[in-house]
Amino acid sequence: MTVTLSAADQALLVRRRRVLGAHAPLFYDTPLHIVRGQGVWLEDAEGRRYLDVYNNVAHVGHAHPRVVAAIAEQAATLNTHTRYLHERVVEYAEQLLATVDAPLSVAQFCCTGTEANELALRMARFGSGSQGVIVSDFSYHGNSATLAALTTGLPAPESLAPWVRTLRIPDTVGVPQERHAAILDQALAELDAAIASLQDAGYGVAALLVDTIFSTEGLVEPPSGYLRGVAQRIRAAGGYVIGDEVQPGFGRMGDAMWGYHSHGIVPDFMTMGKPMANGHPVAGVITRGDILEDFGEHALYFNTFGGNPVSAAAGLAVLDVIRDGGLLEHSRMMGANIRSGLGDMARRHPAIGSVRGRGLFFGLEIVRPDGTPDAARTRRIVNRMREEGVLLSRTGRDDNVLKMRPALVFDQACADLLLETLDQVVGEG
Amino acid sequence: MTVTLSAADQALLVRRRRVLGAHAPLFYDTPLHIVRGQGVWLEDAEGRRYLDVYNNVAHVGHAHPRVVAAIAEQAATLNTHTRYLHERVVEYAEQLLATVDAPLSVAQFCCTGTEANELALRMARFGSGSQGVIVSDFSYHGNSATLAALTTGLPAPESLAPWVRTLRIPDTVGVPQERHAAILDQALAELDAAIASLQDAGYGVAALLVDTIFSTEGLVEPPSGYLRGVAQRIRAAGGYVIGDEVQPGFGRMGDAMWGYHSHGIVPDFMTMGKPMANGHPVAGVITRGDILEDFGEHALYFNTFGGNPVSAAAGLAVLDVIRDGGLLEHSRMMGANIRSGLGDMARRHPAIGSVRGRGLFFGLEIVRPDGTPDAARTRRIVNRMREEGVLLSRTGRDDNVLKMRPALVFDQACADLLLETLDQVVGEG
Repeated sequence: MTVTLSAADQALLVRRRRVLGAHAPLFYDTPLHIVRGQGVWLEDAEGRRYLDVYNNVAHVGHAHPRVVAAIAEQAATLNTHTRYLHERVVEYAEQLLATVDAPLSVAQFCCTGTEANELALRMARFGSGSQGVIVSDFSYHGNSATLAALTTGLPAPESLAPWVRTLRIPDTVGVPQERHAAILDQALAELDAAIASLQDAGYGVAALLVDTIFSTEGLVEPPSGYLRGVAQRIRAAGGYVIGDEVQPGFGRMGDAMWGYHSHGIVPDFMTMGKPMANGHPVAGVITRGDILEDFGEHALYFNTFGGNPVSAAAGLAVLDVIRDGGLLEHSRMMGANIRSGLGDMARRHPAIGSVRGRGLFFGLEIVRPDGTPDAARTRRIVNRMREEGVLLSRTGRDDNVLKMRPALVFDQACADLLLETLDQVVGEG
Repeated sequence: MTVTLSAADQALLVRRRRVLGAHAPLFYDTPLHIVRGQGVWLEDAEGRRYLDVYNNVAHVGHAHPRVVAAIAEQAATLNTHTRYLHERVVEYAEQLLATVDAPLSVAQFCCTGTEANELALRMARFGSGSQGVIVSDFSYHGNSATLAALTTGLPAPESLAPWVRTLRIPDTVGVPQERHAAILDQALAELDAAIASLQDAGYGVAALLVDTIFSTEGLVEPPSGYLRGVAQRIRAAGGYVIGDEVQPGFGRMGDAMWGYHSHGIVPDFMTMGKPMANGHPVAGVITRGDILEDFGEHALYFNTFGGNPVSAAAGLAVLDVIRDGGLLEHSRMMGANIRSGLGDMARRHPAIGSVRGRGLFFGLEIVRPDGTPDAARTRRIVNRMREEGVLLSRTGRDDNVLKMRPALVFDQACADLLLETLDQVVGEG
């Protein structure tokens, strides 16, 4: 089966290019025209249904009735901003903060992950008195001018800023345990060099900014103790640790609400976005009270839409659904089942170089017979899966890691369908 | 009547400070706890109603049923992103672009005015190959690191960046016509010096970034031809003109949908935000097709929530309500009536130094008997108006301009109530 655009979709695509430009990104070799979503299912304009194993924004499922009702009810009642007192934003901050560890104690709301990382960086620079930022050498944290100047994992016309240093996040997948210590030592030495370089150049160290699941990097798995060692060195240099929780947060990893838990650290800032309100534009920064107060004495930070009553209602509804549905535990269990199925599959298909991830975030590394990355085959698999009615994507520095992040309500029947379809498509060669 | 916080509101304020920090801004000497909104009315936790003459975000009135229905219906159907084809975002872009002038022809959607100005600046820098930015010397365009470094009208811990030059926007209010030409010459000479300074420092000129109604500046009114002369010089220096339409846009000025119209220019970029979707976090950049295509060839710009189906539905509903309600014409007429009433009031009260604005955006300059700015009295008036049940705020470099921006559905009865209450409160001294 080869998919082609219908005449109606072709006309829509032409209109779209005219008003949004030719470069606005679309998924798949043949774009998909989605008109409806419910739970883990999306439906296209011709009534075909697709199992959504990709979209992490619809975190508790597309059009979740409880989130939709919260948005509709609050929008019909009041939608202003945080310059008036309102119960919802306070309650939301309290519930959100109940999921994090001391000394993290205060929240600031904004609208996108970009805004969250911008605010965390501003506070880190103010607090440290330094400008330097350390990021992974294949990462993405947002689309503002400053974040573009530290983007290493996407095309950006801005050069890497002179105040940025990059780290290669070490990967231990498939590496024997006895070599992990050496990998750790080398990675920390690389960090020491980055810190020294920023200090020598006069920038100092304001922050480390990392995705705590390293998703853009391709779900690499550093040796145990890596982020603990990194955080200790960053802080010794006067900088702060910003954990970008946009990808791992809100229970996706199954073992905890936040990605930082698995690294044995508590960051100085957590930034969050996409899944936070199931698609409503809500994002946030959580930090220590003393950091926020120092910054607040010198800056008037206000975000017009951030933390407004509707945003707070949507965010609260997502927390409610996660708690009442036991979705953290569900994510852990379903994740283990799927991971086990992917492991079995890897033994049958030499094209699968490794299985990565946990909870409901998986990566399948696709390789050639000689073990080198096979981006072309990975792309073929993504497009063939779409033809077979299962939506996923790819990631990693070599574009050869299948990326799967279904809604937390993904169940065993979905898992079976995913595994069967993947088994068939990977087997096609 | 002196307002004090109820015990319940005091408790809410304590909880709020604990989780959002002590510096998260609140309006009024005694904060207001708003729980409901409808049209031009807000209601507090004790059931008291307030005439809202301030909130420009609820552009067509609080909880407008058509906008609420559009949000609720689309949220229940689908809320993904622009990487799938979807009719709504295309239709929204088409309708929005139908309100602007050639050569503006393409739209990009994001979530906040900050994001819109960030994107416009990134494109302007890429297109010009320069870094320098010229802004007004009392302005605010957003809360990111880059925009904080060009903020001149608010406390920001970041110093003004070395690639920024500032202009004093000349004011002609109360100045005899025969002196306008000299004011214009001097202001353009100031711009020439700013351009030369950026060029000498090696930054060149990427952009002028200005609010086309100069609201933070206190609704100052430059001489006729000012922005035309400025735009011509910016472009001659290789830079772009970014018109920040967050304040004047969507028909607020009554005479046109956009602030740039009154200046006889078409900017290279228009940025928009707050009123765009009546409170739903929607913002956008409109520019020329060639500028966007050049940028798109080198940058992968994607905004997860920007232009999603719910945002597009909310934005479309606002455009529908403006058109079907004849709100542009209504804004012009009601604005003229109010402006006339304010003019009468100014003749009765020597404390009113000048009346500013048009459409449904007004400023009343409050001065001492010697004509100097009276910030303390302005603040008293704002707080007294709140006690009398009318919400407004203040602006300007001397914090002495009463700021009034009601929803476009503000009617004559509201206007009468505003004028009567203001007349009484200003008269209290």
